Amino acid sequence: MHKKTERLDMLTTDKLSVARLVLICSRLGIEDVIFSPGSRNAPMVIAFVESKLFNTYCIPDERAAAFYALGMSIATKNPTVICCTSGSAVLNYAPAISEAYYQGIPMVVVTADRPVEWIDQGVGQSIRQNEVFRNIIKSSFQFTEEASEEQDLIANDTYTIDAIQTSLNGWPGPVHINIPLQEPLYNQAPFVEHPLIQISDIVEKSVDIPELNRLQKIWKSSRRKIILMGQSTPKPMLHHMLNNWVQNKEVILLTETSSNCYVNGAIQNIDRVITNFGASKTKYQADLLISIGGPIVSKKILSYFLNNKPIYHWHVSRESKKDTFRALTDYIPTEAIDFFKEIEPDESLNELTFQNDWEQVRLHTSLRHNEFINNIAWSDLKLFDIALKELKDDMVLHMGNSTVVRYIQLFNQNPQILYLGNRGVGGIDGCTSTALGYTIKSEKKNILITGDMAFYYDSNAFWNHHFPSYFRIIVVNNQGGGIFRIIPGPSSTHQLKHYFEAYQEGDAHYLAKHNNIDYKSAHNEDELKHILPEFLDDSKGVKMLEIFTPREINDTVLMDYFNYLK
Amino acid sequence: MHKKTERLDMLTTDKLSVARLVLICSRLGIEDVIFSPGSRNAPMVIAFVESKLFNTYCIPDERAAAFYALGMSIATKNPTVICCTSGSAVLNYAPAISEAYYQGIPMVVVTADRPVEWIDQGVGQSIRQNEVFRNIIKSSFQFTEEASEEQDLIANDTYTIDAIQTSLNGWPGPVHINIPLQEPLYNQAPFVEHPLIQISDIVEKSVDIPELNRLQKIWKSSRRKIILMGQSTPKPMLHHMLNNWVQNKEVILLTETSSNCYVNGAIQNIDRVITNFGASKTKYQADLLISIGGPIVSKKILSYFLNNKPIYHWHVSRESKKDTFRALTDYIPTEAIDFFKEIEPDESLNELTFQNDWEQVRLHTSLRHNEFINNIAWSDLKLFDIALKELKDDMVLHMGNSTVVRYIQLFNQNPQILYLGNRGVGGIDGCTSTALGYTIKSEKKNILITGDMAFYYDSNAFWNHHFPSYFRIIVVNNQGGGIFRIIPGPSSTHQLKHYFEAYQEGDAHYLAKHNNIDYKSAHNEDELKHILPEFLDDSKGVKMLEIFTPREINDTVLMDYFNYLK
Repeated sequence: MHKKTERLDMLTTDKLSVARLVLICSRLGIEDVIFSPGSRNAPMVIAFVESKLFNTYCIPDERAAAFYALGMSIATKNPTVICCTSGSAVLNYAPAISEAYYQGIPMVVVTADRPVEWIDQGVGQSIRQNEVFRNIIKSSFQFTEEASEEQDLIANDTYTIDAIQTSLNGWPGPVHINIPLQEPLYNQAPFVEHPLIQISDIVEKSVDIPELNRLQKIWKSSRRKIILMGQSTPKPMLHHMLNNWVQNKEVILLTETSSNCYVNGAIQNIDRVITNFGASKTKYQADLLISIGGPIVSKKILSYFLNNKPIYHWHVSRESKKDTFRALTDYIPTEAIDFFKEIEPDESLNELTFQNDWEQVRLHTSLRHNEFINNIAWSDLKLFDIALKELKDDMVLHMGNSTVVRYIQLFNQNPQILYLGNRGVGGIDGCTSTALGYTIKSEKKNILITGDMAFYYDSNAFWNHHFPSYFRIIVVNNQGGGIFRIIPGPSSTHQLKHYFEAYQEGDAHYLAKHNNIDYKSAHNEDELKHILPEFLDDSKGVKMLEIFTPREINDTVLMDYFNYLK
Repeated sequence: MHKKTERLDMLTTDKLSVARLVLICSRLGIEDVIFSPGSRNAPMVIAFVESKLFNTYCIPDERAAAFYALGMSIATKNPTVICCTSGSAVLNYAPAISEAYYQGIPMVVVTADRPVEWIDQGVGQSIRQNEVFRNIIKSSFQFTEEASEEQDLIANDTYTIDAIQTSLNGWPGPVHINIPLQEPLYNQAPFVEHPLIQISDIVEKSVDIPELNRLQKIWKSSRRKIILMGQSTPKPMLHHMLNNWVQNKEVILLTETSSNCYVNGAIQNIDRVITNFGASKTKYQADLLISIGGPIVSKKILSYFLNNKPIYHWHVSRESKKDTFRALTDYIPTEAIDFFKEIEPDESLNELTFQNDWEQVRLHTSLRHNEFINNIAWSDLKLFDIALKELKDDMVLHMGNSTVVRYIQLFNQNPQILYLGNRGVGGIDGCTSTALGYTIKSEKKNILITGDMAFYYDSNAFWNHHFPSYFRIIVVNNQGGGIFRIIPGPSSTHQLKHYFEAYQEGDAHYLAKHNNIDYKSAHNEDELKHILPEFLDDSKGVKMLEIFTPREINDTVLMDYFNYLK
């Protein structure tokens, strides 16, 4: 009993379940679909593209395509569909899927498969795709093959609906729909609406907060409260509430750069401050620690709380339960703002010396930071000081892994800038592609700062026809993995240069040319200061600036810096 | 009771199980270890490199590193170890692992992991690595963390031994050892031999061939026998036996190029021959089909046997059972030569008309092939005709996926050339890296012929310091995925150019420059003929030749070619 629409001229695939999947995607609000070329996924290509209901993209390298989708979903807060052919193509999606899973970004992975009866029978482009991502994904589904009976079609419809809703509910994440398809793959059929497909909304029940009273009492009685903000998008209502508490000296607020939480008087530069604690660490110890949101970048804060545990630790996040500091007393799986409204914390008896101790370190290290930075040699640290100051308000800054994001955390945030980075798993594998995917869906000026290793790793990021309108890339070329010079350990080995740092002498000049990207380079402070204004001008398109810093000085400067903060 | 060796000056990691893993690897014959930079895998880096018992390599992009290892293992027939840090790095190994699994190539994947108790606790670079490859690997093991008690150390030793032996036994393949490691990671300790580690050999029992008598009777009574050789390394004894049968007109022998089986009078060009069958296909139908070895490239032979099933089909291979033609009557999991020796087939009553019918088509299509090729326009087909003739004896030819390998199968094999290609899963993802990995372990001149899409996909293949001594790359630039123009289906859609073929106008010039590779290009027959001799000269090093063919003519030429063969 399908009612035909007016769109009689339109076509779709003759694979009924695929045609219906496309309609369900549209009805559930999917807007963006990225394909990688293949034959087995032809029914999806035909159905999605012919429907004209979606923005469709083609990105040949599945690894890059999946990171693009991640970036798009970060921008739209809506699942992006990625769709590829069968075989090893599918496996190239895995790195981005894992990042989406831990960062909490919705994504719908649709893979074409050989018919079930042909798996492990010696035909090419076939692997065991069913549940292949089970370790790194929210949920996996497999279509009944070539469904034509109504009950099978409805089962497949249900998989699609469940997949999309699962990707969005709670802590969002990736889901996988595997679709076995028989030949012929390219047949087309008239477009048909399927009004009978029943899609029920999910009304998320508000989380019962166990023993609200008990929590209220703990809040009230805790005289040393610390709130730690992990990775998050800006949340104005929450930030307003936090701001009040900071101004009233109710809590110490620690904000990572990637939390996008800018509150005057908060500790924005966690690593700077903790370095200064010295021996008397208990002085700064919380009795109640409340962590909010997603992943934490700072290793120093992890180590600090592990060694100086609070009496109570509440983790307030839709993430799954996690006990990052081995001190978790309550896991509250909801949005922080809802939780705080619920417990309506009164003013509590606060220990003012605790407040003052933190404040003193904050001011002291801020001063020391400025003193030190103004007088240092050309190095990574100096580069960030110069470059970050020049960024324009209202920009989106994509922070590459992992040296870059750590340097940026040492500097004050610009409240007008949105700070993003792949901190779910924190790999170097898709920084450029993620930033580009975001930029395609962004109205703002986007800039990526990345290291040479991360940039080379994702060198296929530009291999497609979808160029963003305003994109700037700064490649910090410190001739290898600079991180291995600044963490303790590698330098005590004979393998530092070749196996950890992976020393390289190259530059990105020809890669830029290969991708038709305007390229400039800077080798010192003067050159950088001279080039930056033009590089950050308003002209549309993509520009790259590669900045060379001395690998054998960077680590010394950073070590001196932390010593100076003490 | 560990006896110290003379090598008192040598160091290893202080992680006991890792130090012992390295010793076991050496004692079980592992020679090559490829690292990708990371911190968590530092104990393995230190132990493998300091031992000086291995050739060690550093390749930053794990996707490329794993394909290098695949190539090395193809060359050495010995497992190559790949070793990376924790997190998404691990997942980048997956495409090459799947190819190794289906191609039957040994490989030992060693991944560093965060301590078990830190998984899903909000620390970075951690995913659920235990069994993450279960769908695409022979076996997975996870070390007991920080083992120090002898029974735990022995358990981990056993995992290592089992893993390496599993990778080599039967149909070889990849295995995974996941090693959770606590900080500190960089501590070193004196090198210690562990003579107590007991390594038992596995004596593979010869497979009982069920009902040998029955099989002998079938062989004897089958008057129309076809032997089909899939992917394989050269097997002189088997080829000698096959040669006798072909000369005695005992069997029709079909050899794929990748079978590296050169027998005079065999059907080398399966696709050419089958195209000519026309309507009277049963004329060529076998009563006994024996398939030998690994994956089959030809789609036409798959389709032919599916539609013209033999009465008996024996699959003789150490691969797992597979029923590629839906006609399998006996699965004989052993080496073909052992099987044939066992059943000692006598001469049988053979149908001579059957032999003559096949021979006639072979000769006819060979003639038609030559006539057609000599008079065609500049195109992919012409390019292969010219280039393949110029290859030197004793070369190793790496065939890219998937247009390239299909074209090469249309031409006669050179018995002096070894033909290789990733035909296990058959993805385009690692063709260049696999070829380079092989070349590093090869004494011969190696050449890769690859399409533009496959070449771009694996553009990080040269991102390391391990340049091979003689390597030539021909990039066939037909401006996209030429395969989608030559298979039926895509051209009936509106999506051909942008979503299937993925049309691109670029060239590899700057990528070559980026990698310091000598680069030439050719745009027509004359240029190609002029350049080839110098390109294929004896000079060491890496050279690239990019050959441009007209994408809108290639498919017509190929279609005309197959029509002409009929």
